[in-house]
Amino acid sequence: MSQQASLAALHERIAAVNDVLNATSLLTWDSRTMMPSGGAETRGQQIATLTRIARDLLLAPETEKALEQAERAVEGLPEDAAEKRMVRQTRHALEHHRSVPASLIQERAALRTVAQAAWIEGRSKSDFSIFAPHLAKTVELSRAYADCIGWSEHPYDAMVSIYEPGETAASLKALFAKLRAGLLPILDAARSRPQPRSDFLFRDYPEEGQRAFGLTLAEKLGYDFRRGRLDTTVHPFEVSFTRNDVRITTRYTRNYLPASIFGTAHETGHALYEQGADPAYVRTTLATDLVGLYAVSGTSFGAHESQSRLWENHIVRSRTFWQRNFPELQRHFPEQLGDVTAEEFYRAVTRVEPGFIRVEADELTYDFHIMLRTDIECALMDGSLPVSDLPDAWNAAIKRDLGLTVPNDAKGVLQDVHWSTGYIGSFPTYTVGNVMGAQVMETLRQQNPSLDAAIEAGEYGALAEELRARIWQHGRRYTRDELLERETGRRLDPAPYLAYLQTKYA
Amino acid sequence: MSQQASLAALHERIAAVNDVLNATSLLTWDSRTMMPSGGAETRGQQIATLTRIARDLLLAPETEKALEQAERAVEGLPEDAAEKRMVRQTRHALEHHRSVPASLIQERAALRTVAQAAWIEGRSKSDFSIFAPHLAKTVELSRAYADCIGWSEHPYDAMVSIYEPGETAASLKALFAKLRAGLLPILDAARSRPQPRSDFLFRDYPEEGQRAFGLTLAEKLGYDFRRGRLDTTVHPFEVSFTRNDVRITTRYTRNYLPASIFGTAHETGHALYEQGADPAYVRTTLATDLVGLYAVSGTSFGAHESQSRLWENHIVRSRTFWQRNFPELQRHFPEQLGDVTAEEFYRAVTRVEPGFIRVEADELTYDFHIMLRTDIECALMDGSLPVSDLPDAWNAAIKRDLGLTVPNDAKGVLQDVHWSTGYIGSFPTYTVGNVMGAQVMETLRQQNPSLDAAIEAGEYGALAEELRARIWQHGRRYTRDELLERETGRRLDPAPYLAYLQTKYA
Repeated sequence: MSQQASLAALHERIAAVNDVLNATSLLTWDSRTMMPSGGAETRGQQIATLTRIARDLLLAPETEKALEQAERAVEGLPEDAAEKRMVRQTRHALEHHRSVPASLIQERAALRTVAQAAWIEGRSKSDFSIFAPHLAKTVELSRAYADCIGWSEHPYDAMVSIYEPGETAASLKALFAKLRAGLLPILDAARSRPQPRSDFLFRDYPEEGQRAFGLTLAEKLGYDFRRGRLDTTVHPFEVSFTRNDVRITTRYTRNYLPASIFGTAHETGHALYEQGADPAYVRTTLATDLVGLYAVSGTSFGAHESQSRLWENHIVRSRTFWQRNFPELQRHFPEQLGDVTAEEFYRAVTRVEPGFIRVEADELTYDFHIMLRTDIECALMDGSLPVSDLPDAWNAAIKRDLGLTVPNDAKGVLQDVHWSTGYIGSFPTYTVGNVMGAQVMETLRQQNPSLDAAIEAGEYGALAEELRARIWQHGRRYTRDELLERETGRRLDPAPYLAYLQTKYA
Repeated sequence: MSQQASLAALHERIAAVNDVLNATSLLTWDSRTMMPSGGAETRGQQIATLTRIARDLLLAPETEKALEQAERAVEGLPEDAAEKRMVRQTRHALEHHRSVPASLIQERAALRTVAQAAWIEGRSKSDFSIFAPHLAKTVELSRAYADCIGWSEHPYDAMVSIYEPGETAASLKALFAKLRAGLLPILDAARSRPQPRSDFLFRDYPEEGQRAFGLTLAEKLGYDFRRGRLDTTVHPFEVSFTRNDVRITTRYTRNYLPASIFGTAHETGHALYEQGADPAYVRTTLATDLVGLYAVSGTSFGAHESQSRLWENHIVRSRTFWQRNFPELQRHFPEQLGDVTAEEFYRAVTRVEPGFIRVEADELTYDFHIMLRTDIECALMDGSLPVSDLPDAWNAAIKRDLGLTVPNDAKGVLQDVHWSTGYIGSFPTYTVGNVMGAQVMETLRQQNPSLDAAIEAGEYGALAEELRARIWQHGRRYTRDELLERETGRRLDPAPYLAYLQTKYA
């Protein structure tokens, strides 16, 4: 069999897996945007079946056979050849899924259903004890999962590897130590200054105006509506069904204008990454997370978050953006923003105010929420923190880092959905994204002296083109650290992120 | 293995097939309602993959094994027991798909792509010769398909059996002979009367008002919006993803009011059938067309059409409906309908006017369009009509039946999409639906003397309840003729349909 024929056979297998996973993503998108309430139960069954089929297709003897032929075919290729990477990643995913018995997958899925119900009840009653036994079971099954996949230093390493290959409990600990040391003085400095006015953010902003501005904003940043659409959901997200159809959602909070603006900018950043993938990688391993069984072109959760944070914070949450674009926002809301200047608006959307809730946190305090969760996840996974001690550990960390006293579990340990879905290990990718975004942005600015002028002029095409060439087009061909080394000359480094925050907030 | 365990194993296999087919339906619904244009190509690949997977799941050795065990388990059950029917239908579908080689399926799918493009071009240029070679190939592959499935009297029998089990070229010929003889004098009588005024139907009707009335209309007929939604498409349709999520679409023609009203009523009729299926049949063979690989509860295309036509024509296109509901329509369009009475509106929407286009035809001429197409399909399948003679045959039939001279192929032989998608054999199910709907309605009226009074009072719950109990709830458990025999005491019979048209139009 020729090299080409060997690879074609594997491509065909993986294309089918990608098709199934994209269909699964559509089932999910629809359930959050369009589906009538009655469809929930059968929709859940449909999603479960398609996910199982994707795994079965991967584990079928035909895939192994095609993979072995493809492995022989790519032997002579350079290490970073796209075809070689596809084959390597498929092998890695196959071994991953072989190591996890179907019974454990079913057990986790069954737990998810009851754990989510318990979490919803526990949060509504602000009573951690309702959720605690399910979290204990989640930790137990996650530990079993980690043992299946394998780990050497720390069981958390296995969980993180699913979302952010390359990171470990130890590497995150080192990263967080540097971050904490750098962030605290900036936070102190910011908190020592008087708060800017922000009353106008809480005025009455009808949805039509917010949506109209959001559509313009997404387009301005480079989002291609011929391959996308913007809908409304309770929790905003981005999802793609190949690079040809990448959708975003947002939420319109009538009495808090920034939610939809920065939410839309954030999801647009995610969408640009997916829309910018190489068309040649469509339906291949390089556009499919075969380990996580999710059709995505971004190379890791953290890399994805780097793009959403870059556009949300470095571009849209900037003084120059509002100097240029505030008049347009005013045109949509002449009464609500008539007594506000661009500078006042910028200051209001960059005010620093420690709070209990992660998703409402400002740029300076956000990472403390993440570090807290990551520390707890590590301690749960290695058994050094019993589930029953979790609220105390949580509340003590919030007191230590942000100086706040958590009033109840709903505003503390029960606020996030993540653990109730059986996921442990994804939280640190948010901070990885912040760090990576700043690192990439710093390099781009250094290497392109004209970039800042273009951004100040409201021209984002040059930035998008740089990101497309350096990151987006590669899909999952390179790891996150490989991308960073190619483009910035070094692995993940918190210095640019701290420098950016220092300049902006201290 | 216990009887229950044997059946459970088969149920699990079929539930997965049903999940995949429902996901396929969602991919299609989305492509026609929500998908950005860029997504078309990869969406087509996703649909093809999922359809193939559904077939593969059916043909997998595990299904055969589970089926054999289930066959033994249901041996002692009565012929019409639901479990026995499930097993029988699964066996029938398995044998059907085994008889058709994958290569023929691929050949048909490949042809579809080029044939549709040629049809679009041919129609736009009104030139049959552009489409003709692809239609010839479609006939050739359909003939090969029929030979795989098997037939004894006429190759068309095999094609019709996919859509309307029980009908054959011969049975349709007999039915059409009676219909033609009965329809012609009614049509003559209707055409001898002066045309009612209809100018007001063509006024300016903004979409908002049409949509608002359509939503009320669907709800009034019994459509459950907690398990459904109404969207806008170019070609209206109904589609379900189990009975828990049954969606309809319509089209708003700004200068022709009846299109959306009767289109919505029609699709609501389809939706009521699906929403009314027995919840116990969800994800089973009795809610899945395993031969056609389509997740649907209706027992045949004709049975489905009987429900849409019943609600569209017997209920909404009736004098009593507009006597009661015209004032509400006027409230939505006070200026456009201010000079119109309910009686005038009813007469306008039941006016008879022979035309070239099937989808615009009135109740009296519609079936002539269907009979023409069915005659042609039969003659194509048995080779008695060469493709090149098709326009002449078409135009001659329109002249003979409707007295019209077809001006060009676009308004004649090229008007319908069906043949370009590779489908031959589904046209007669439209007329079967008309006949069955009238037959059911006649029996219901005879057996429930209070039904007419309820309908006249605008109460449609009693009718829906009767249809639910007699037809909808059974899903695919009984064949169309079994349903008719159970409920009307005889098989498909055109007499009630002709009597209904006679009363209404002659």
